[in-house]
This record gives sequence, C-alpha cells and structure tokens, in this order.
Amino acid sequence: MREDVQKRAKALVETSVFQTFVTLVIVANAAAIGFRTASPAAPWDVVLATFDIFCLGVYVVETVLKLTAYRRAYFRDGWNLFDFTVISLSLIPTTLLPVPVQVARLLRIIRTFRDFRIISIFSETRLIAEAIVRSLPGVLWTAALLFIICYVFAVIGVTLFGETFPQYFGSLGKSLYTLFQIMTLESWSHGIARPVIAAHPWAWLYFVPFVVMASFIMLNVVVGLLVNSIGETKHGMTRDLSRKETEEYAPIAALEQEMDQLREHLEQMEKILQTLRKEEPK
Amino acid sequence: MREDVQKRAKALVETSVFQTFVTLVIVANAAAIGFRTASPAAPWDVVLATFDIFCLGVYVVETVLKLTAYRRAYFRDGWNLFDFTVISLSLIPTTLLPVPVQVARLLRIIRTFRDFRIISIFSETRLIAEAIVRSLPGVLWTAALLFIICYVFAVIGVTLFGETFPQYFGSLGKSLYTLFQIMTLESWSHGIARPVIAAHPWAWLYFVPFVVMASFIMLNVVVGLLVNSIGETKHGMTRDLSRKETEEYAPIAALEQEMDQLREHLEQMEKILQTLRKEEPK
Amino acid sequence: MREDVQKRAKALVETSVFQTFVTLVIVANAAAIGFRTASPAAPWDVVLATFDIFCLGVYVVETVLKLTAYRRAYFRDGWNLFDFTVISLSLIPTTLLPVPVQVARLLRIIRTFRDFRIISIFSETRLIAEAIVRSLPGVLWTAALLFIICYVFAVIGVTLFGETFPQYFGSLGKSLYTLFQIMTLESWSHGIARPVIAAHPWAWLYFVPFVVMASFIMLNVVVGLLVNSIGETKHGMTRDLSRKETEEYAPIAALEQEMDQLREHLEQMEKILQTLRKEEPK
Amino acid sequence: MREDVQKRAKALVETSVFQTFVTLVIVANAAAIGFRTASPAAPWDVVLATFDIFCLGVYVVETVLKLTAYRRAYFRDGWNLFDFTVISLSLIPTTLLPVPVQVARLLRIIRTFRDFRIISIFSETRLIAEAIVRSLPGVLWTAALLFIICYVFAVIGVTLFGETFPQYFGSLGKSLYTLFQIMTLESWSHGIARPVIAAHPWAWLYFVPFVVMASFIMLNVVVGLLVNSIGETKHGMTRDLSRKETEEYAPIAALEQEMDQLREHLEQMEKILQTLRKEEPK
Repeated sequence: MREDVQKRAKALVETSVFQTFVTLVIVANAAAIGFRTASPAAPWDVVLATFDIFCLGVYVVETVLKLTAYRRAYFRDGWNLFDFTVISLSLIPTTLLPVPVQVARLLRIIRTFRDFRIISIFSETRLIAEAIVRSLPGVLWTAALLFIICYVFAVIGVTLFGETFPQYFGSLGKSLYTLFQIMTLESWSHGIARPVIAAHPWAWLYFVPFVVMASFIMLNVVVGLLVNSIGETKHGMTRDLSRKETEEYAPIAALEQEMDQLREHLEQMEKILQTLRKEEPK
Repeated sequence: MREDVQKRAKALVETSVFQTFVTLVIVANAAAIGFRTASPAAPWDVVLATFDIFCLGVYVVETVLKLTAYRRAYFRDGWNLFDFTVISLSLIPTTLLPVPVQVARLLRIIRTFRDFRIISIFSETRLIAEAIVRSLPGVLWTAALLFIICYVFAVIGVTLFGETFPQYFGSLGKSLYTLFQIMTLESWSHGIARPVIAAHPWAWLYFVPFVVMASFIMLNVVVGLLVNSIGETKHGMTRDLSRKETEEYAPIAALEQEMDQLREHLEQMEKILQTLRKEEPK
Repeated sequence: MREDVQKRAKALVETSVFQTFVTLVIVANAAAIGFRTASPAAPWDVVLATFDIFCLGVYVVETVLKLTAYRRAYFRDGWNLFDFTVISLSLIPTTLLPVPVQVARLLRIIRTFRDFRIISIFSETRLIAEAIVRSLPGVLWTAALLFIICYVFAVIGVTLFGETFPQYFGSLGKSLYTLFQIMTLESWSHGIARPVIAAHPWAWLYFVPFVVMASFIMLNVVVGLLVNSIGETKHGMTRDLSRKETEEYAPIAALEQEMDQLREHLEQMEKILQTLRKEEPK
Repeated sequence: MREDVQKRAKALVETSVFQTFVTLVIVANAAAIGFRTASPAAPWDVVLATFDIFCLGVYVVETVLKLTAYRRAYFRDGWNLFDFTVISLSLIPTTLLPVPVQVARLLRIIRTFRDFRIISIFSETRLIAEAIVRSLPGVLWTAALLFIICYVFAVIGVTLFGETFPQYFGSLGKSLYTLFQIMTLESWSHGIARPVIAAHPWAWLYFVPFVVMASFIMLNVVVGLLVNSIGETKHGMTRDLSRKETEEYAPIAALEQEMDQLREHLEQMEKILQTLRKEEPK
C-alpha cells in the first residue's frame, strides 16, 4: 500500500498541471512580496499577507508530495535541498515562539529567499546557476589565497593605522572590510589611502602593493575561470577529433581484413601450384 | 504599371548617387543637431531648424521610395525597421496636436535617435553593431538571473533599510537602482554600505555577499561571451579539420577499390588453377 | 664621395659604442627631466638645463647621422618618424621667437615626449608597444561606434539636463566628457546620476541604459581583442595540424604504389595461367 | 658523523608528525597574531606574546633542522628562502638594540609576514601562488612600459598642474601616485580631473588620453596573460593530437608489412608458374 501512495504521489507531482500551478504560485508570491514592500500599512496588505500564507501552504504540500514520491532521491537534488531548507525555516512561528527580534528578522529574510525558486523555473537560468555553482570550486582556493593575503595586510593595518583611523582599521574585522573595499577599487585612494597617506607619508607602501597584488590575483581568477571554460569546450573538441580518428581506423581495419583474405587466397593458390608442380614431372 | 513603378524606384534607390546623397544628409543632419545644442537662441538656429525639416523630408522620400522598391522585404531588415519607426515617430506634429509636454519631449528625443543611422552607413560599425545585437540572446538569461537575485535583495533591502535610508532603499525601484549601482561597484562602500553599516553593524552581511555574487555572475557573462566567440572561431576550425579528414578518406577508399580488383583477379586465378588441377590427373 | 659619407655614417651609427652612448644619453636625459621637476629654482637647475641642451644636441647629431646613413629608409620606421618629429619640434626656439604662451607651453610638453624614446631602447617594451599599436585598427571601429552612441546621448543630455546641470551637460563637449566619465563607471551614480535623478525622477531611463550599453560594447572590445589574439595563435596551430596531415598522406601514397605493383604481378600471372589452360587440353 | 646528523635531521624533518606540528604552530601563530590586534592592553596579551616567542622558537628549530637535513638544497626552494629571510629578520632584537623607531616598526611588520607561510601549507594555494609568480615575468615588461608612460605624464603633470594642485601634482612622486590612482579609474574624474579642468579648461587633453592609453595597455596585460594560459593548454592539446597521429601511422605500417609478405608470396608463385610453363611444352 505504501508503494501505491508513492506511485500516486509521483504521478501527481509529474503532471504538467501540478508543475504549472506551483510555477504560477512561485511567480505570484514573488510579485506579492514585492508589492508588500510598497506600502506595508495599506489596507490590501492583509490580503497579500493571507496570500503569502496560502503560498507557504502550497509549498508545504508540494514538498510533502515530492518527499512521498521520491523519498531519499529528493535530497540528492541541490534545488530540492534549497527548497526544503527555506520552507522548513519559513514554518518557524516567529510571532508565537518567544524568539529574539534578531532571529525573527533573519527568518523573515529567509522567507524572501523563496523567491530564488524562480531561478529553478526556467531551464536557462537554472543551467546558468548550476554552471556558476560548478565553477565555484575552481575559485575557492584562489579566494583562500586572497583571504590569507588580506588577513596579513589587515593585521599590519590594525598595527599601523588602528589608532589614527579607527573607522577603517580599528579592528581586524574593520580592516578586512576596508581591504575588501580596496580590492573592488572603490574609493580606495580618495576615500581611504589619501587621508591615511596625509597622516603617514610612507603609507603608500602599504596601499599601492596591496592594490597591485589584489588586482593581479583577481585577474588570475578571471583567467583561471576562462581557461577552464575554454578547456571544457576544447576537451569536447579533442574528444570529437579522437572519435573521428577512431572512425578513421575503421577503413584501415577493413583493409587489413581484406588483406588477410587475400593472403589466404594466395596461400591456397601456392599450395595448388606446388601440387601441380610435383605432379607435372610424372 | 505598378511593377514598372517598383522597378524604377528600385533602380533609383540603388544608384550610388542616391545613396551618397542620403548618407551626406544623415551626417549633415547629425552635425546640425549637434550645433543646435550649442546656442538654441542664436539667429542661425532658424536656418538649422529649417535644415532639420528638409532632412526629415529627405528621409520620408527615401522611406517611401524604398517601400515602393522592396515592399514587404523592406521590413525584413532590422535597420529599415529602426529607420521606419524613428521617422514615423518624428512626423507626429508636436506643435499642432495637443499632446502632453512629456510626450512632446519624448518625441523630440526620438528625433535625435535618427543620428544612430550613422552606424548603418559604415559597413564596419554596422557589422560590429549587428554582432553585438546577435550576442545579446546569450546574455539575456544571465541578465534574468541577475535580475532575480537583485529583486530578492531589493525586497530584503526595503525591509531592512527602507526606514533608515529612504534615499537608497525607500522603495523597490530605489532599491533596484541602488543594487544596480552597487553591481557597477560605483561608490558601493563609501557611498552606500559604510553609512548603512554605521547604522546597522551587521549590514555588511547584506552588502559583501551581494558584491561578491553580482561580480561573480557578471564575470560569468564575460566568460560566456568569450567562450561563445572563441567557440564560433573554433567551430570553423573543427569544420576545417573534418573537411580535411573527409579528404583523407579518399585515398583509403581508392586503396579499398584496388584491393577489390586484386581479389577479383585472385579469385579468377584460383578458379583457373582449380580447373587445371582437375584436368591434370586425367 | 656622397656614397662614401653615407657608408661612413652607417658604419658609425651601427657601432655598439654609438648606440650605447645614445641610450645612456636618453636615460640620463629622462632622469634629469625628472629631477628638474623637484626644484625648478635650485642652483643646480642651471647645470641640468645645460645638460638638457647637450642632450638635444646629441639627438640632433644622431638624427643627422641616421638621415645621412639611411636616407629615405629612415622615415619608413615608425620610431624614427616619432624621433624626428619630437626633435624637430624641440628645436623651435620658444624664448627668441614671439610665439604665444600656449604654444610655448605645448612645445615644452612635446620636449618631454623625448622620454618616450626609452620605450624603443628595450626590445621587450618596443615589441609590446608595437603589438599594442597593431591591435589599434581592430578597436578603432568599435570606438567609432561608441562615439556615435555617446554623440546621440550627449545631444539628448544637453537638451534634457543642459539647463539644470550646466556643469555636466552645459554643452556638447561637457556632455561628451561626462558620458566618457560614466563609461569608465567613475562616480557615475553618486556623482552624476543621483543628483540628476533627484531633479528629474525619470532620468534613470537615460543613465541606466547608457551604462548598460556602454559597458556591453566595451566588453565586446575586450572580447574582440582576445579572440583576435587567440585567433592568431590558433591559426598557427591549424597550420601545424594540416602540415602533419600532409605528411600522413605519404604512407598511403606508398601503399597505393605497392598495390599497383601487386596488380601488375597478378595480371602477368593470370596471363601465364590462361596460356597454361589453353595449352592443357592439347 | 656529520652525515649521520644530516640523515637523522632529514628523517625527523620528513616525519608527518613533525610537519603536522609545524603546520599547527603556523596556523595557531597566525590566529594569535590576529587576536592580539583586538586588545593589545588585555591581560591575556602577555600569554599571546609568550606564545609568539614560543612559535618563533619552533620556526628557528625547524629552519636549523631543515638546513642540517638539506644543506645547500634548502635555498633552492623559493618558499624556504622566504621562510629563512622572514625568520632571520624576526630574530633581530628590536627592544635591546638601539635601532631607530622606523626600523623597529618595519621589523614588527616583517614578523607578521610569517603568516604568509599558511599559503605554503595547502598544496592548492601553494600551486596557485607559484602559478601567479610564474606569470609575473610576462607582465613585468608591460609594467615597465606603463611606468615609462606614467613617468612622462608625471613630469608633464608637475610642469602643468604642480603649482595649482600641489596635493595631486606637487612632486614627481605625488604625480606618479595620482596617475596610478587614475589608472585604477578611482575618482579620476570627480576627484582629480574635474577640479583640474575647472582651473585649466584644456586639461581634459591630459586626462582623457591618459585614461584611454592606460586602460588599453592594462587590457593588453589581461589579454596577454590569457593568451599565454590558453596557449599552454593548447600546446598540451596539439601534443595530444600529434601523439594520436603517430599511433595512427601504426596500422598503416602494419598494412605495408603485410603487403610485402603478399608480394613475396606472389613472386614465389610467379616463379613456380614460369617453371610450369617452361616444362609444359615438352
């Protein structure tokens, strides 16, 4: 009987009516969430809030159905995992439980994350998002390298400028944020370096090398990503070429087979000729 | 008779004199539009305004002639479609009809768009513009992905910072504009993030992930465009290679044919030999 | 006798002593020009000014010698043309002739351009500079396209914001400069767009499309440059591959020759056998 | 006996226990250096300072052991050279010797550089760092070219704007820093060019060409790096292809061998036939 339920759930989940309905709910919910920001005190906000709860209900039913249909296989898909986490966290009743205000706010933000599901609706955005997530590991170690360099510069920054520029280098965290800003080249000179250099004339020895190093490493991230992407395309191409080459072997192999047959023929003929020769002198 | 008119129109439109004249009018018109901005109250502005009307007349005659010459085929070309739209909209009499001021201003701006026709004069700029327009579809879905992410962040931005920073996050529209600015990395930290972080210390958790995500996705647009462009060049190359490989099959096919002939010869010889052998013992 | 002078000049110009001396003078002159900026009123400035005149004398002698040695061929090299122009313009006596102050200042700046000769000393920087100059034509038409778009937006900018923001859009020139700044994304939003949008709420329809278009076209410049550079490398590679393929035909051609010999053998054998057969029944 | 010490040192240095211990000390030391910035006056700072001295001791012992184990080979590795320099400089007793304050501060900063050793712990970051260092030579000459151009523009900048904008173009050094900032496009227009243009209306002829030139040369650095990286990958690919082609020759060579055997057979047969023919008429 349990398998019967699974089959029915699977059949229902895979109907296009069900999928279209969920898609429409996701898009409508995203639009509603957007509209609610316009005027949180408007009279129709109650309608939108009710619609939000309805949408959450639809998501819960969808998740339960999918879990029934696919069981453990449900969690193998990254998108399902994301859905499950966001929907589970959305269910925590912030108004009833005595949760701290910060946590309640965080849960409200996480509820907004449901809108990210729109990405998984269109196969194009879905594929791009998956490709971007796949390209992450190749970048993570360069990010780690950048972090180590930022960490060392942040420690030096606190030691050197911590007292004179507490808003930029007051703590390790502030230093790291400032160095992240410098890395994006935003106001690095007019906002940060020039005032610091005005107070410590040799400070350009801190900023200019950091800007050069960070930009150069970031450039290597770009180059790495590109070479990878091109490499994948090229891998495909090399595979194509080698497949063609394997096909190319085929006619040569056929030739060899034919040649073997020819030799067999010839060997037979030779035998006949030799018997003829022996018989002749008689 | 109608076809006679079409033929004559086509002949006229395709003469180099006609084309050079239209080109000169377009360039002169663009220059005149530029000069008119310098001193809209100058006495010679009347001359330039008259010249502008003359140019519009030339464009109308050109469009009518081309329509007569090519008929439906005229609308198959993107450049013609652009010309037709801009010239049609330029003909709306803003001074006579009681149109609202905003619409009159918009129509005046659209009239300036006629200058874009200069792009279609030179085949080089024309080809580059066409290549850029062709590369758009490959970018649109990544733009959609970016928009979804911006939308979610904009909703969160309004919820979190809408009250404290109404100039940046006051509405969904303002939020989206602010996030677009952050995406270009312009004043993202000194202009927006630092004041917000001063009021909400945990706000760096909103800005830093957004900057990293947006930059990384934008980077993927660049990588995608590049891999596409290189892919096209490579496709040409692979085609070249496979053409060469097909040529390569030719000699092997010739070998096989010769081998077939050899076998036929051998089989005939074998038959002769076998008949010889049978006859021998007699 | 004239050819004797040419030969001697050539011999002198091509000695490594002469070339090293000129190189040292160029480097020393560049250093001296740099030192003179430090304290134009210092007592040793007279020494540096005298050294500057000495260097100019060396350049004049060098140019005369090279002209004598290579004659017309001297002007075929871009670097020589640059040297000749800069040195000729450096010889105009600004202190004696009654030239206007602006021209005198321009000539003083051009004299500084002599330092660019350092680029031509090292073969590495020379080659990079030549490669960059060679890559220019491929970019010029995209620059033309960008200019047309900027021109149209500048005209619209003057019409729309010329009165309210004269410092940014007061004239066509100011508009073009502002759009160039926006194209580099420097302070485009906080510096220009936000104040303008505060006055004209719909102005984001002017700035956001321009930023997107300009960035996308600029991106295409980068992609174009890259694909070109990679294309050159690839061209070499395809040539390598096709050379290899031509070598590959060699063994197959040899096989065909051998096969021809085999057939000849077989045909002879067949004839013998047929004569045998005819003789048999006797 | 000396070799016995070397062997023992090598055996000890290469045990995973020793390596893990050193790794843990490096990471713990980096964390401790970070924590010390938080509150330099806290009571536990004495503990952290003592731990810092302990770590330095561990590094000294490690270096001595490695020197004993590998001798001259120790200095062949760039990472060892870096370790040795940083640790040696960390040993200079700034509190005992009468060194000037500036030097003492510099030595304290160099001590922080020890944290860079974290890069060499993970093979991934190590390889990325090595790849980046390897890609430097290809960029250095373009950097030299950029420096020459900046130098000339800096000299011109001091001459033209030195008096009116001493904070940006007061000296050659300030000019070079300002031009470096302009090169990163940070506040180039709103921060520097616009005020200068307000004073010298023709100054855009200085800034716009510099921005265009610097950006274009920087772009060529990116393109150069990319083409290099792709070139390396492509080199590997061409090698793969040619290896495949060599393998392809194998079956053809086999065919030729078989053909030789066939011809031998045929030649023998022909001989037999010819003897037969001679015998026949008898």
